[in-house]
Amino acid sequence: MADLSSMGEDAVIAKLVQGIPLAEHVQVGPGDDCAVIDIASPKGLQLLKTDTIVENVHFLRTAEPFSIGWKAAARVVSDFAAMGGQPDSLVVALAVPKELPFTFLSAIYEGIYACAEAYHFSIVGGETSSSKEIILTLSGTGYATQPILRSGAKPGDSIYLTGQIGGSIAGKHLTFQPRVQEAQWLCTHLPPNAMMDLSDGLAKDLPRLAEQSKVGFDIDLTQLPCTPGCSPTQALSDGEDYELLFTTQHPLDEHLHAQWRARFPNTPLTKIGTVTRHKKTQLEGGWEHFSNSSD
Amino acid sequence: MADLSSMGEDAVIAKLVQGIPLAEHVQVGPGDDCAVIDIASPKGLQLLKTDTIVENVHFLRTAEPFSIGWKAAARVVSDFAAMGGQPDSLVVALAVPKELPFTFLSAIYEGIYACAEAYHFSIVGGETSSSKEIILTLSGTGYATQPILRSGAKPGDSIYLTGQIGGSIAGKHLTFQPRVQEAQWLCTHLPPNAMMDLSDGLAKDLPRLAEQSKVGFDIDLTQLPCTPGCSPTQALSDGEDYELLFTTQHPLDEHLHAQWRARFPNTPLTKIGTVTRHKKTQLEGGWEHFSNSSD
Repeated sequence: MADLSSMGEDAVIAKLVQGIPLAEHVQVGPGDDCAVIDIASPKGLQLLKTDTIVENVHFLRTAEPFSIGWKAAARVVSDFAAMGGQPDSLVVALAVPKELPFTFLSAIYEGIYACAEAYHFSIVGGETSSSKEIILTLSGTGYATQPILRSGAKPGDSIYLTGQIGGSIAGKHLTFQPRVQEAQWLCTHLPPNAMMDLSDGLAKDLPRLAEQSKVGFDIDLTQLPCTPGCSPTQALSDGEDYELLFTTQHPLDEHLHAQWRARFPNTPLTKIGTVTRHKKTQLEGGWEHFSNSSD
Repeated sequence: MADLSSMGEDAVIAKLVQGIPLAEHVQVGPGDDCAVIDIASPKGLQLLKTDTIVENVHFLRTAEPFSIGWKAAARVVSDFAAMGGQPDSLVVALAVPKELPFTFLSAIYEGIYACAEAYHFSIVGGETSSSKEIILTLSGTGYATQPILRSGAKPGDSIYLTGQIGGSIAGKHLTFQPRVQEAQWLCTHLPPNAMMDLSDGLAKDLPRLAEQSKVGFDIDLTQLPCTPGCSPTQALSDGEDYELLFTTQHPLDEHLHAQWRARFPNTPLTKIGTVTRHKKTQLEGGWEHFSNSSD
């Protein structure tokens, strides 16, 4: 029987969640950046998300423990942002080796709390258990008035990216700022037809968006907003960019671009291609959890 | 500086969550079975919980993978029950070694889905990552109209237990039925002043309840509802019972006991002691996550 590394993460997940029953008030189940649940509240639709980071896969033990905590929390916040939403309440599950000094754990929590303060959510619970590696799972709720899904892209849409991509391993993957305000701005001024955040690299994530929208794409590799020093190949493949990838029916005109620049002067907004009817859904590269070696 | 095994889990958690800011709509933060959040919904107050099980701590790889999934989900459901609540939507974070056969993962998920069907909740999302050990974190939301906290016990309250305790390692820890219906019944017919579920053993958990209620307790060890074949010492210490521990101002009279027996013929309800004013909060035994050896 197939082991996980021969199947790939997407196939594994797809098979696991195939045909599972969902209650009627669950509007979006597995497969998007967050689940979407109608909780009959004026606060909006509720988003629910869980995300794990693992030692030697997502960080090394030599990393600043503060930034390990920041990263774990910011990844979840980035998923709320990717739906056009905001985080509300998160819980922390931390599995750590017993011999770890308390100061290390405490600094991880400081990173989580710093993210909570910066992005206005509460840490409402947590638990710890012992394990061989440090494994940190953050989960919880957020809200969105009108969630932007991965499945809404239409042929003819322009494809955009916030920020710059590639080379995240040099440091950004531990210290990135999730694009909550940027996503809010986009929802107010456009809104996007489809949106997601880039975690496994554009080459892996854009085909996911296209697949869910049942469309193809045409990307101009010369237009990729590469991090200075990065090649287009790295920009496609490196992963952990935590930038927003979105499509919109009307490309942003110069007036709207100027508004964006005034509001987010340090974050470029770049058109990288067009959504097509034909289902070209392949790009070379991107991070594959069960196949890429992390040792 | 102290490492985790010299501090103990409760001290670790207490220090980590000390003085953290919570939004106003968070009614209960870290420290109870679940967080309680006012979401302005007619569905009730929202409960939020995360819980992790780790290979070689909570299960062995030789266990039925179905029951590993069942256990991970049922533990969270048990925490909702402990608040007098019901589960609604859960997400799954699964970290597994790459060489694991897909069928193993798939059977874990079948156990999770079986629990979802039995206890009427939805699995709305999940993710997988690679790790050395199998680590399964389930998180999500539930509802309670009037959550029962650990902190509500009053001097003079009778202390009760559902079911039998001790010897869970023989199998119950993998196959237990969380006491959701039982907790609902208690909330309707009493309600309890304080309640929690037993996960680390009565000797560890009752002092936690007493501590949070700022009371003591007087337990009659001869009255403990021990699993057949278990000594009172095992009943105190073994852990993973997932029974309800609660206190109530009025001890159940024979009429109410008869009603309970008619509704739950296989689950005894036993008075084991009394809440006292004096703060005796020690019992010998119970599971200590960072000190007990699991290797």
